[in-house]
Amino acid sequence: MGSTCEINAAMSIWRRLSLFVLASSLCSCLCRAEDSAMENIVTEKKAEESHRQDSADLLVFILLLTLTILTIWLFKHRRFRFLHETGLAMIYGLLVGVVLRYAIHVPSDMNNVTLSCNVNASPATLLVNVSGKFYEYTLKGEISGSEVNDIQDNEMLRKVTFDPEVFFNILLPPIIFHAGYSLKRRHFFRNLGSILAYAFVGTVVSCFIIGLLMYGCVMLMKQIGQLGGDFFFTDCLFFGAIVSATDPVTVLAIFNELQVDADLYALLFGESVLNDAVAVVLSSSIVGYQPEGDNSHTFEAMAMLKSFGIFLGVFSGSFALGVATGVVTFTKLRDFPLLETALFFLMSWSTFLLAEACGFTGVVAVLFCGMTQAHYTFNNLSPESQDRTKQLFELLNFLAENFIFSYMGLTLFTFKNHVFNPIFIVGAFLAVFLGRAANIYPLSFLLNLGRKYKISSNFQHMMMFAGLRGAMTFALSIRDTATYARQMMFSTTLLVVFFTVWICGGGTTQMLSCQKIRVGVDTDQENFVSIGPDGVERRSTKQESVWFFRIWYNFDHNYLKPILTHSGPPLTATLPACCGPLARCLTSPQAYENEEQLKDSDSDLILNDGDITLAYGDITVSTDATGAHTSGTPVGGVAVNSDEALDRELAFGDHELVIRGTRLVLPMDDSEPPLPLDSRRHRHKNETMS
Amino acid sequence: MGSTCEINAAMSIWRRLSLFVLASSLCSCLCRAEDSAMENIVTEKKAEESHRQDSADLLVFILLLTLTILTIWLFKHRRFRFLHETGLAMIYGLLVGVVLRYAIHVPSDMNNVTLSCNVNASPATLLVNVSGKFYEYTLKGEISGSEVNDIQDNEMLRKVTFDPEVFFNILLPPIIFHAGYSLKRRHFFRNLGSILAYAFVGTVVSCFIIGLLMYGCVMLMKQIGQLGGDFFFTDCLFFGAIVSATDPVTVLAIFNELQVDADLYALLFGESVLNDAVAVVLSSSIVGYQPEGDNSHTFEAMAMLKSFGIFLGVFSGSFALGVATGVVTFTKLRDFPLLETALFFLMSWSTFLLAEACGFTGVVAVLFCGMTQAHYTFNNLSPESQDRTKQLFELLNFLAENFIFSYMGLTLFTFKNHVFNPIFIVGAFLAVFLGRAANIYPLSFLLNLGRKYKISSNFQHMMMFAGLRGAMTFALSIRDTATYARQMMFSTTLLVVFFTVWICGGGTTQMLSCQKIRVGVDTDQENFVSIGPDGVERRSTKQESVWFFRIWYNFDHNYLKPILTHSGPPLTATLPACCGPLARCLTSPQAYENEEQLKDSDSDLILNDGDITLAYGDITVSTDATGAHTSGTPVGGVAVNSDEALDRELAFGDHELVIRGTRLVLPMDDSEPPLPLDSRRHRHKNETMS
Repeated sequence: MGSTCEINAAMSIWRRLSLFVLASSLCSCLCRAEDSAMENIVTEKKAEESHRQDSADLLVFILLLTLTILTIWLFKHRRFRFLHETGLAMIYGLLVGVVLRYAIHVPSDMNNVTLSCNVNASPATLLVNVSGKFYEYTLKGEISGSEVNDIQDNEMLRKVTFDPEVFFNILLPPIIFHAGYSLKRRHFFRNLGSILAYAFVGTVVSCFIIGLLMYGCVMLMKQIGQLGGDFFFTDCLFFGAIVSATDPVTVLAIFNELQVDADLYALLFGESVLNDAVAVVLSSSIVGYQPEGDNSHTFEAMAMLKSFGIFLGVFSGSFALGVATGVVTFTKLRDFPLLETALFFLMSWSTFLLAEACGFTGVVAVLFCGMTQAHYTFNNLSPESQDRTKQLFELLNFLAENFIFSYMGLTLFTFKNHVFNPIFIVGAFLAVFLGRAANIYPLSFLLNLGRKYKISSNFQHMMMFAGLRGAMTFALSIRDTATYARQMMFSTTLLVVFFTVWICGGGTTQMLSCQKIRVGVDTDQENFVSIGPDGVERRSTKQESVWFFRIWYNFDHNYLKPILTHSGPPLTATLPACCGPLARCLTSPQAYENEEQLKDSDSDLILNDGDITLAYGDITVSTDATGAHTSGTPVGGVAVNSDEALDRELAFGDHELVIRGTRLVLPMDDSEPPLPLDSRRHRHKNETMS
Repeated sequence: MGSTCEINAAMSIWRRLSLFVLASSLCSCLCRAEDSAMENIVTEKKAEESHRQDSADLLVFILLLTLTILTIWLFKHRRFRFLHETGLAMIYGLLVGVVLRYAIHVPSDMNNVTLSCNVNASPATLLVNVSGKFYEYTLKGEISGSEVNDIQDNEMLRKVTFDPEVFFNILLPPIIFHAGYSLKRRHFFRNLGSILAYAFVGTVVSCFIIGLLMYGCVMLMKQIGQLGGDFFFTDCLFFGAIVSATDPVTVLAIFNELQVDADLYALLFGESVLNDAVAVVLSSSIVGYQPEGDNSHTFEAMAMLKSFGIFLGVFSGSFALGVATGVVTFTKLRDFPLLETALFFLMSWSTFLLAEACGFTGVVAVLFCGMTQAHYTFNNLSPESQDRTKQLFELLNFLAENFIFSYMGLTLFTFKNHVFNPIFIVGAFLAVFLGRAANIYPLSFLLNLGRKYKISSNFQHMMMFAGLRGAMTFALSIRDTATYARQMMFSTTLLVVFFTVWICGGGTTQMLSCQKIRVGVDTDQENFVSIGPDGVERRSTKQESVWFFRIWYNFDHNYLKPILTHSGPPLTATLPACCGPLARCLTSPQAYENEEQLKDSDSDLILNDGDITLAYGDITVSTDATGAHTSGTPVGGVAVNSDEALDRELAFGDHELVIRGTRLVLPMDDSEPPLPLDSRRHRHKNETMS
């Protein structure tokens, strides 16, 4: 195998290097010469060698990624769909892990001697006085007694082990940001209610069900004496939280390729994006559950309320921060795409850091920052920057994702403290399955009561099937592997991820055809004539209509978008006439220019036949004011009577509303020529009809 | 000021955080409860707090960069040219440094107590036994006795101090790669001889002159008792090597904007790119100078030869490695731009790591990798990937460069071991000036003896003036600040960089107008009719013609390019007929397809009027074979006689050669239709005439 070859080459370099380090350090011990400059050179050499080793270390991962890319290309070229790039990355990671674990025996570095200093504290920085010279050491973490020998045993396995925080602070943010930034907004907003229900209610339900089942498991293990350490109910709940984050990247890639129903895609993607956020905050509030008193694992209402408060606080804080910085990134640097892209990148990153520094969750903030930037900032960017930012985050997402998955494979063999317990593993698989079922089926039933366009049973089965676990679950579980309970969770989580990614991910196409889910759907057409699960064609532009959401949409379209972006109707058109001066002041010059090519990719999300009257109710005065004006207007190039116009409006209500929104105060506003609006109206009509 | 505000906000977070850390750690000391789970939570909390602090830390830098970008935009918008973004980044860095140093007083973290363990070695990993629990510590480095107190004194200044290796391994590679990847190849190759002379001979001359002058300075300081530590001749040479790396990024940005003469641009840019590489290898071979015996600072021929060997070995090794991996990146992934871009990025990075792991210099390898990839791989990429890779590295370069320069400003105040010595500083400025002069003027005189198109005296003055020091000098000097000599070098280097970037960089436009250097030159036109320094128009397509270079060009164009890229003439056309099967096997199908749009941006680099006969000599047989064929061909849509055709060929010889190259064996090759070639010929003709 190519990978083995490369690894072996790297290993041999390593072997030589560690021998060299050994030799040079022995040398430095023996010949403690009087010349200090000589010593400096030795220190320099030592640092150089350690640096070389790190380079070789990183090189292994990069070659691993390269290999993955080449194989993916082969697969894509040949149209293999049974193995996604992430699954492949895991396999390569596994292979390298096996090689590192069993094939390589590096002589232990004699320098890593345990020094039992018997001090009384564990400071973050330690200064060690070595024969008059001071050396600075930084705390890496606590290690269990059993590991002490391991550390001296296999230096190399430890070398390829990354600080778990790397995942949370470097690899996860671009993945999550990309998810938010690339959300298909139209379908996302159309299904927002259901997505929120699955992500929030569903994830919490799943977390508690898994937690309870696992606690039963743990009790059983205690009974038959298979439990080797503490395992509290909070640990079980923590496990429930981390394995409740779904990551159907494999499934979605296939959905994209096969053009599966856009609403199913939106439901799955939206749920997975948001439940990552919920799982992160949920797990951190479970960790934050600390009842007073001696026994910290009893139930206490106050502590639980506090945890709930933490959940709400952290989530809303991260949400607010993400949205705020997303909105703030109001670039006017259109002439310099490089500056613009750099600013965009830095603002997104600073959102993450700011949230972390404030004690919120950076990943959640970055998610909402991405969504806000996609909604507002994206419209302000120059076309070149739009491409650049999309491509940049696409690349970062790709690299980070594949790196995480290949590291996941690697860690199955290189992690030294695995605790594989058959009962726990079987229990976990069962619990994950039941937790997912308890999320999807009851919620779908409840949602279907309120939805016009029901979530059919084959969609439900598909969602059940697509409950893969991935990067977020892994990152959460590797973050802390100090205790016995956490180690067992980590090992089990790895298996859950492997199984779901390979089996569920690989069987997606089979599942799609088995459930008879239509593929090759043209997203834009399906928008207006969609075929229900019962095979009846329906003219429906939406699935849900929540009243507050409609209000938000109007507010967003008429006021927020014009203020925050160059696109959207100018404020002078949407604000009442009395606010004219303010509106003129807040509207950017581009807004007028752009008005012609006004394009709202997410405009058709609110209204449909049934709700149009309600919407009329909301804006009664305006509608009345312009109603007469509208009826005589030629629509689609043909003069129609008012009845026909109303018919059309009923059919394409939401598009109309957009236009209505911009026309509301038009007759009173002299600065706006009426012609462009009419022509735009035509364009919209034509668009919706095509 | 916005920056101060932001910093203060971040500082207050820090202050609160460190208080929290203090409290929680005190708590952990006092209440060493019997519950181990409780302890785990405390450890978790502690790690979380330290993570928050790091986030806030990084946030400061990101806000600094954001601020820089916004100000740059303002400057670009207003067309201010006296301050480049790098100069600006330094100023902001300085301001933040002042604030951190003088305005903020963080209570020292009680946890960082010195533990005089009095062990006998300084292992890389230290296990500390704290009341039965083992904690793992990693070696950060040796610190001098005077620093021991500082460490407890100002934790915060240390927090904003990066590991110097970050510069070499993370920030420098994208900058250097970008330089190689964006080299304007046509003008670079036209002036290759001069560039190599300046970069190799010039840098070595400059290094030794600066080294000698500084040694005089050091002797003087010793005489008057101002020297506080060891300072050897090798240290002086090392200083000479690190300040010999020029980085005229500021000047080149203005050149680009004002469209200054492309050859001057190429000379300056080419020199700066290559002398970075020379300086890195030179400094590492000076460090490697170790004569045997007790006194390591005497002159010894063997050791010097060894150092020279190291220089040659490391340089050629890095060169070979860079070129090899550049050539290897032979992508066929055209259908998947994302995969292609990812692969390109990973291959470039692995070049760096591979070189470092092998003991070569990664930066040098990455430079030549970039140049090779620009020459070969770039042609294989899909158009989308070409844009993506360019934009990606442009962004990385921009961010890394501005980060380095702002950190440079910061470090003037936050670095704790500055040694500012007036004599040394004055001496250094003088030596840098003289070293640059000894590089440019004598070499230019010698080069002018051989050059057709002389380097005029105002060009020489401009090159002298544009000897700015920048990122590479900084990275080399901060890499090791352990000894007194190195600390003095670092402080002096900082001042040299500040002075040259602000004064020389800011005065570029003045210098240009003072030296009466023409601006607004159209690069493409200037190619054929260039005005010499004496004001006489010359028809000249080249400045230099080295025989081996011409041979290389022909070889590259006719054999390497066809083998390594999809562009270029198919091998079937360039190889002798006897090699037909081999040629057909090696030529990619795209080469035939692409032949139509064959475009050689670097094709006009070899021949001119004087050399055309010699070139004919090289390929006499072929020319004879097609000569008759050519003469009758209509050129530029008009039928011309053979005399006129020859005239044109003389004028646009190099372009002709390209076509000739593809036509050489054409009459013998039946698979090629002759028509497209003729039409292409027309296109070329038209291009050159326009």
